[in-house]
Amino acid sequence: MTDPIDLIRRQVSDLHQELVRYRLVVWTAGNVSARVPGEDLMVIKPSGVSYDELTPDAMILCDLDGKVVEGSHSPSSDTAAHAYVYRHLPEVGGVVHTHSTYACAWAARGEAVPCVLTAMADEFGAEIPVGPFALIGDDSIGRGIVDTLRDHRSPAVLMKSHGVFTVGKDAKAAVKAAVMCEDVARTVHISRQLGEPLPIAQADIDALNHRYQHVYGQQPAAR
Amino acid sequence: MTDPIDLIRRQVSDLHQELVRYRLVVWTAGNVSARVPGEDLMVIKPSGVSYDELTPDAMILCDLDGKVVEGSHSPSSDTAAHAYVYRHLPEVGGVVHTHSTYACAWAARGEAVPCVLTAMADEFGAEIPVGPFALIGDDSIGRGIVDTLRDHRSPAVLMKSHGVFTVGKDAKAAVKAAVMCEDVARTVHISRQLGEPLPIAQADIDALNHRYQHVYGQQPAAR
Amino acid sequence: MTDPIDLIRRQVSDLHQELVRYRLVVWTAGNVSARVPGEDLMVIKPSGVSYDELTPDAMILCDLDGKVVEGSHSPSSDTAAHAYVYRHLPEVGGVVHTHSTYACAWAARGEAVPCVLTAMADEFGAEIPVGPFALIGDDSIGRGIVDTLRDHRSPAVLMKSHGVFTVGKDAKAAVKAAVMCEDVARTVHISRQLGEPLPIAQADIDALNHRYQHVYGQQPAAR
Amino acid sequence: MTDPIDLIRRQVSDLHQELVRYRLVVWTAGNVSARVPGEDLMVIKPSGVSYDELTPDAMILCDLDGKVVEGSHSPSSDTAAHAYVYRHLPEVGGVVHTHSTYACAWAARGEAVPCVLTAMADEFGAEIPVGPFALIGDDSIGRGIVDTLRDHRSPAVLMKSHGVFTVGKDAKAAVKAAVMCEDVARTVHISRQLGEPLPIAQADIDALNHRYQHVYGQQPAAR
Repeated sequence: MTDPIDLIRRQVSDLHQELVRYRLVVWTAGNVSARVPGEDLMVIKPSGVSYDELTPDAMILCDLDGKVVEGSHSPSSDTAAHAYVYRHLPEVGGVVHTHSTYACAWAARGEAVPCVLTAMADEFGAEIPVGPFALIGDDSIGRGIVDTLRDHRSPAVLMKSHGVFTVGKDAKAAVKAAVMCEDVARTVHISRQLGEPLPIAQADIDALNHRYQHVYGQQPAAR
Repeated sequence: MTDPIDLIRRQVSDLHQELVRYRLVVWTAGNVSARVPGEDLMVIKPSGVSYDELTPDAMILCDLDGKVVEGSHSPSSDTAAHAYVYRHLPEVGGVVHTHSTYACAWAARGEAVPCVLTAMADEFGAEIPVGPFALIGDDSIGRGIVDTLRDHRSPAVLMKSHGVFTVGKDAKAAVKAAVMCEDVARTVHISRQLGEPLPIAQADIDALNHRYQHVYGQQPAAR
Repeated sequence: MTDPIDLIRRQVSDLHQELVRYRLVVWTAGNVSARVPGEDLMVIKPSGVSYDELTPDAMILCDLDGKVVEGSHSPSSDTAAHAYVYRHLPEVGGVVHTHSTYACAWAARGEAVPCVLTAMADEFGAEIPVGPFALIGDDSIGRGIVDTLRDHRSPAVLMKSHGVFTVGKDAKAAVKAAVMCEDVARTVHISRQLGEPLPIAQADIDALNHRYQHVYGQQPAAR
Repeated sequence: MTDPIDLIRRQVSDLHQELVRYRLVVWTAGNVSARVPGEDLMVIKPSGVSYDELTPDAMILCDLDGKVVEGSHSPSSDTAAHAYVYRHLPEVGGVVHTHSTYACAWAARGEAVPCVLTAMADEFGAEIPVGPFALIGDDSIGRGIVDTLRDHRSPAVLMKSHGVFTVGKDAKAAVKAAVMCEDVARTVHISRQLGEPLPIAQADIDALNHRYQHVYGQQPAAR
């Protein structure tokens, strides 16, 4: 019988290829993790390993304090932030971090991406908010993510001067949020280069978000 | 003998790969449909299925009210808009919807793309017009498309705050219009970043459009 | 023994893939031709055929008035312009036409690309000049190209509101000029978005161009 | 036993494909070199050869005055600059030169890229500085690189009106710096298009750089 953790290792390994495919990452600068359901464990990318060399076996199994349980490499230097999110947001099953270009461009100015596209209303239900500037090395980044997203519809947060973190019910949903975040950050940026995008009424944003979160896609599993 | 509907399923499935190739779509956010000639039927993408997993068999056969006739998935959430177009524009054999970046950037400001390139005069014969803001869920989007395109040369409409719909005599022509729409929306955007593009005289636009629609490409079938 | 025209058919067919690789073209909108050395003949792309379907056999052999000598398709709708160039610039062995994005963005404003990069001084030796607005259908485009390039160092001309034509001693050199033209049009555009690029002194442009045209690359054949 | 120089030939050849993959180069305009450890020798790309045709055997072995020791082609026209760097910066084991778009856009204005992203603080530890305008043909470019980088944390220098040179302990580290340089030059450019990126305090830049240079990645070899 296949170990469920092996399936998660494979899923996390494969999902890193989506970051490459959608050009959200260069070199080794981005990572995906998944919670092991029902356990105080997570699977995450090893640190400083290229996307070409990632395999299920290379993924690191950590506890939710970020300590390595199984794995011959060091885990991602962002492990503490992922772990903090899993400890404090129990509904979250996957976390993604990237330095994707347009999301970072908004983050470098400390500006939220306004919700001016129906696709944003669908996926994010609001602006994509900005979290605090925080140094790596302790729980500052994790706390900034959780404090910003806890009462927000958006599954993505732009960490000031740094990059983007996204969450989802599983790792695939978090990767989808990372892909969509860069896509709308880019489109709204380009739109604003030549004028102001039109606002969408809050009631319309609410209606679109409710419909998308409850009706879109195949039921119940295909999203 | 091959069922003509099977051929259309294959064509519609394959044409989605052109949306990927020309980077008009990310994740699952875009769709192609084709009318079944001589029948009140259309073939369209299933909802929320990734482009990697699309196969001819996965395509959904619907009637022109958008009801599923054959298919194990739900059809695209944009099915009602496609169906409305087929019901009201009998010369249309294919419809495409995308959130391609530059088209959306113009749509988010509610601005038409001015006809300032000879390639635009060829393919669109005019500016690419803006349609109304409309919520998904009823015929509003379809009506907005049809009302905007019915008396317009352009096969593309920018739906305000949303994305682009294109039409054609068949699905391939609608995909070509989607590709060209993004291409010219991008070029004109970039041109305007550093000044104003020069206007093209209306008589020249008319002459170019007439020539391209009647002379260009192989006769009679290769276009 | 291989017919020299067959070699040229293959070369012209293959070089179209470089236009695709460097993203200078979408759908069918660009073309390469080559003069048949020592003959009043040229080989050019067929009209409206996708880049996936191009083969050496599909290439069209024309005389230098643009009349088809051998080929089952219509030649490119830009054949008259290519032919005019070969008739009037005997040193030219290859011609390329594209609607590449950044070159077109400058062309839409009718602005030359200033020579502010050493790579431009190397390859173009000057600004990339603008040619007149001209309609397709007679010799206007060809004449505009020739009148602009005849006494100019640049192998590329931005035809107003239209696109770019490049020339070279052979088709490969013309393709290289098309690739470099888009590259520098893009870099200078992006540079100017945030200020004014520094000028390069004319004497330095002259020195760089002389060196590159006479020293760079493998001798004598590899460039 | 494998000749160590053969291994370096292979590494330098392979690393050129990373320049292609990350779109730092078009046609033949970029090059990687590596010092042969313990010898007054370097391995560098041949001049004017396309990236498709590069093989380990095609790489050129030169002494540190840039004279060919082994190789049937001419070495890169930038060989003198690489050689100057190896002669004057003994800790450098690899050098990369590109005309990557966004780095060149800053270089064309003679502007340094400000350090406004944590990823820049990690990798560059400071702004990416500008070196002098210098003509090819003598030691001017090499001297400009060395004078700018000698007392600077950044492994990348933007040579005015020209392009970027990066250095590293080996060729792979120099390629990584070239990839990251373009990535941050692009992100900061895009951020500045719509306002001013927020500054990062010098103490935070120092802390991030120290941590990244000493802690990140697998120990000791994986970075």
